[in-house]
Amino acid sequence: MPRSKVYVKSVGMTTVADHWNDSILDLAVEASRGALKGHSKKPDQIIVGNMFSAVGARQEHLGALVATALGLAGIPAFKVEAACSSGGSAFNVGFNLVKWGAIDSALVVGVEKMRDLEPEEVSQALAMAESAEYTQFVGATFAALNGLLARYYMEQLGVTRDELSAIPVIDHANAVAAPHAQFRKAITPEVVSRSSMIADPLRLFDCAPVGDGAAAVLLVNDSAASGTKRKMAEVLGGKISTNDFSIYEREDMLDFKATRLAFKGALQEAGVAPGKLSTLEVHDAFSVVGALSLEAMGYSKRGQGAKDAKAGRYSRGSDLPINTFGGLKARGHPVGATGVYQIAEAYLQLTDQAGKNQVEGAKYAATQNIGGVDTTSAVHVFGRAA
Amino acid sequence: MPRSKVYVKSVGMTTVADHWNDSILDLAVEASRGALKGHSKKPDQIIVGNMFSAVGARQEHLGALVATALGLAGIPAFKVEAACSSGGSAFNVGFNLVKWGAIDSALVVGVEKMRDLEPEEVSQALAMAESAEYTQFVGATFAALNGLLARYYMEQLGVTRDELSAIPVIDHANAVAAPHAQFRKAITPEVVSRSSMIADPLRLFDCAPVGDGAAAVLLVNDSAASGTKRKMAEVLGGKISTNDFSIYEREDMLDFKATRLAFKGALQEAGVAPGKLSTLEVHDAFSVVGALSLEAMGYSKRGQGAKDAKAGRYSRGSDLPINTFGGLKARGHPVGATGVYQIAEAYLQLTDQAGKNQVEGAKYAATQNIGGVDTTSAVHVFGRAA
Repeated sequence: MPRSKVYVKSVGMTTVADHWNDSILDLAVEASRGALKGHSKKPDQIIVGNMFSAVGARQEHLGALVATALGLAGIPAFKVEAACSSGGSAFNVGFNLVKWGAIDSALVVGVEKMRDLEPEEVSQALAMAESAEYTQFVGATFAALNGLLARYYMEQLGVTRDELSAIPVIDHANAVAAPHAQFRKAITPEVVSRSSMIADPLRLFDCAPVGDGAAAVLLVNDSAASGTKRKMAEVLGGKISTNDFSIYEREDMLDFKATRLAFKGALQEAGVAPGKLSTLEVHDAFSVVGALSLEAMGYSKRGQGAKDAKAGRYSRGSDLPINTFGGLKARGHPVGATGVYQIAEAYLQLTDQAGKNQVEGAKYAATQNIGGVDTTSAVHVFGRAA
Repeated sequence: MPRSKVYVKSVGMTTVADHWNDSILDLAVEASRGALKGHSKKPDQIIVGNMFSAVGARQEHLGALVATALGLAGIPAFKVEAACSSGGSAFNVGFNLVKWGAIDSALVVGVEKMRDLEPEEVSQALAMAESAEYTQFVGATFAALNGLLARYYMEQLGVTRDELSAIPVIDHANAVAAPHAQFRKAITPEVVSRSSMIADPLRLFDCAPVGDGAAAVLLVNDSAASGTKRKMAEVLGGKISTNDFSIYEREDMLDFKATRLAFKGALQEAGVAPGKLSTLEVHDAFSVVGALSLEAMGYSKRGQGAKDAKAGRYSRGSDLPINTFGGLKARGHPVGATGVYQIAEAYLQLTDQAGKNQVEGAKYAATQNIGGVDTTSAVHVFGRAA
């Protein structure tokens, strides 16, 4: 039996932007200070989610680096990496350590510095989510792989260009009122379909942008939570799953198995039925990935993810609004930080701090954070703290 | 209360060597297959310890990569990084998840591919353990920092060149009969003191070598362990601690605080008195680091670590033989793998599988794995399984 309930007690975020004047450490510290503000008690543990600080900032050992910068040297600290699901995976470690009683509290901070790299270097860095010996070796970029997947999705299941544009349109509409979002500007489907070609059929606006950012959450158990006047979100369940590594190794490329398994496991642990979610953060690094994710989680039938989005199923005001702060496309996708941004956003919804993006009476929220092309998926489910 | 006792049920290792024909994945798989051999049940989790696969192999996302290569896609997997203590830190996560009941079993594999890099690239990769904005910025390599520390240690505390050579001499003597060691050749103190200068006063034989390797351990709880005929080692305690990040930020550079705190915490959790250890794996990435580590753990008084080593206190046949398979200097130091090698070696001692290196009747063993200059320290304590 688990030892304790687990709560997200507070969060901190930087804007997702070109942070030319801030180092990766500056960003991590700003987000962490936001999450720790007003807390006198030190967290028991620091866990940093990050994918490629080695190439993005020539920096490893982020755990101890962040601990020292926060004046917390002494406490255990390390980094967790699982490509673009580094943030969600780091959170999962903290969640389980608190839930099962190993520690009382943990600061989980996701951070990535991408904009100091040249565009080709970003491509090379992201490609490290894929096999160096096979996928990278043949020169396939990460965008190219998702382009192949999008072509296959459209041709096999009869999905149109305009349908594919629907999720980016939702994201941009939601980002307008999101203070931390990278692109706070609404777009039309035509903006997507007329944007530059990146990896046929994926265009610029099908793809998450490059940006710098950090997000942090403070996780606490029952006793550390007691007596607080803060509004909190409860972490009800969480699971990481993996898929066969690369899409070419899979029986069915259109089945996002890692997400399917992680979503099922997380909801089961949470004891929440899929229909009960008030809002959902979907890992739409590319439009096609958002659509296939919604299908893997069972909200859309096979081939219907993009179509349902176009029909308004996932927009604000619908039964299941997704990416209420802009998702990966418009809030931005500083890769190792993204999973923690999603969780901070779920917290804002469940504590009625989402401002103009508030989903009225939001009761349950989930976050889905992918590494690779659904190679790793970390899903977490949240509720209002009683 | 913890949920279960935790056991190291089996281990696997590659030799530490120049593995020109093996990729980082090949090495991780070879070690993992060794640890999983004869086990029909899948582990619940894979945790990879690695420091710089991003620059050493242009590869991240090792968790899912290893899972798929082992035919284990589906299960949760991620990488843990804490510079040279990545292996010990990865193990600590697995240990706590099993101990507290989150999972029943975990495969922890440490791996590093260093030899594909040019020597300057290795220096740059290791320097990522230190701050990019300060220490790296002024051009201080990791060896240079340890050189400064060695000079200070010798001048402040009256330690001689010959005394500093004692730990490398012990390591090389112990590696002769270690099948997986990188340098199986005994040396004299003169070999150390006459070897090339690397970072004054540190010479080539004061420094751990560059090599490729992987080590893996299978961790199980009570129920997963029950009914086995295998000899196992019990994990009695473990702790990660951090120090102020860089040596120049510390009140006392000669106090290895991270190791001191981690060692104290791990022994306390284990309920084992320091005097009860039969053998100890010390993180002697540089001779001076080995000496200061022995002082931080309380086995030698301040300034006496190297002197005690020269006097025979830590040699085979003494009360506390260290680094019985060669330590970082002679077994080798594939950085992210080292912490797991140490644990695999403690297992071999406690299950009477250490061959010619066997410490007769070894009852308790500990491993100390450092990242940076004692910036992070992960200590674990092991006993014979009842």
